[in-house]
Amino acid sequence: MAESRVSLKGAERIDDLQRAGLKIIQDPERFCFGMDAVLLSHFAKVQPSGKVLDMGTGTGIIPILMSALSEASHLTGLEIQEESADMAARSIRLNGLEDRLSIVKGDIKEAGSLFSHAFFDVITCNPPYLQVDHGIVNPSDAKAIARHEVLCTLEDVISAATVLLKPGGHFYMVHRPFRLSEIMNVMHAHKLEPKRMRLVYPMADKEPNMVLIEGIRGANMRIEVEKPLILQNADGSYTDEVKEWYGF
Amino acid sequence: MAESRVSLKGAERIDDLQRAGLKIIQDPERFCFGMDAVLLSHFAKVQPSGKVLDMGTGTGIIPILMSALSEASHLTGLEIQEESADMAARSIRLNGLEDRLSIVKGDIKEAGSLFSHAFFDVITCNPPYLQVDHGIVNPSDAKAIARHEVLCTLEDVISAATVLLKPGGHFYMVHRPFRLSEIMNVMHAHKLEPKRMRLVYPMADKEPNMVLIEGIRGANMRIEVEKPLILQNADGSYTDEVKEWYGF
Repeated sequence: MAESRVSLKGAERIDDLQRAGLKIIQDPERFCFGMDAVLLSHFAKVQPSGKVLDMGTGTGIIPILMSALSEASHLTGLEIQEESADMAARSIRLNGLEDRLSIVKGDIKEAGSLFSHAFFDVITCNPPYLQVDHGIVNPSDAKAIARHEVLCTLEDVISAATVLLKPGGHFYMVHRPFRLSEIMNVMHAHKLEPKRMRLVYPMADKEPNMVLIEGIRGANMRIEVEKPLILQNADGSYTDEVKEWYGF
Repeated sequence: MAESRVSLKGAERIDDLQRAGLKIIQDPERFCFGMDAVLLSHFAKVQPSGKVLDMGTGTGIIPILMSALSEASHLTGLEIQEESADMAARSIRLNGLEDRLSIVKGDIKEAGSLFSHAFFDVITCNPPYLQVDHGIVNPSDAKAIARHEVLCTLEDVISAATVLLKPGGHFYMVHRPFRLSEIMNVMHAHKLEPKRMRLVYPMADKEPNMVLIEGIRGANMRIEVEKPLILQNADGSYTDEVKEWYGF
């Protein structure tokens, strides 16, 4: 059994990803992945044999899903927190993905010295959504680091992505709609031009709670806004598009 | 009869606006208003006794509708084309709105010398959507002037609006989604911060074809993205929100 390849620590558990037999180690006392990571994995596109970096990968959920959803030759997850990086590395062994997926422990703010510049075809990121002045933050808490810009800001993410992407390379991010203006301004300022966007609405008559955005390094200023991504029907059931992703 | 107050020229006709008995003079050989003008009139909010400017007002459709939809003390339409300004002025007489609504013939690019700075509470604009290099343009054609940036660019509109709005004043614009990144960058650069946005989808499974955006002069960088505005149901009938606007 694959489970025999890894050991679990503390409150960790193994969850089935309902996709290509993939599994992930998570610790509910630290952080469990949400729908945003699943949406981003499906929104991102990788050409065959592309090289991918996921910045702030946490438990590695995004590159693990993208190993099945793309023909990327290699996926790297960059993670600053020791415990998360260790869990991600064990999930890679658990899935037998050592040849295609690796974890680098390090800081997004220093990514330009960790990797070759203009090296990656695709960079993904599910960054913390909230500025540090939004609500109370415990800076040593894994949940706070995942949710608040304790260790890196939006601009840190974008500036690192621009440096590490090839010219014409693609950046994919999920974020909160209330930061959309800032996202577009920071991306444009760093020549990572917003080229495709999709708003995620919980239901057809609700405000969007997520935005998926694609940028291309060095592209011109013209964005394609896609059809709405509506998660639930009026009766509370998932829409067909969501069902397909979760393998319902 | 109100019609006796005005004379029609050439191919002009009088259309009923289905709202408070309002009518408008239009020339189908020049330009007839579309749903975008109706959407913008409903998206814009004016506090009682507010002063409103509509830049590039054309036949005056937006201030004429807003005269019924708001308690604005005065609405001014700025229009560069002689024939359109004349039609708008006759529509104002036709509706007996001379006390609340006036037309100024002039250029958006010179708006800063036509009006007092920081004078208006609200500025609306339904600008030309397309850059001049998109498709063939006849620069003397009224339809081309309405659709292409022949006489003014997006930046001309935004920079004029910032100068003429009071600090904290509100700007409302309808535009095409493919220019969203540029809109947000230009608005931010001119300190007319995007604060509210709504995407307009023809149907729930289609790409949006319009975006409604509100900016506030001098506000902070945080935007509220509203629920989707879906125009038609799957069976082709208009949704309830659209029916209400058209008085169906």
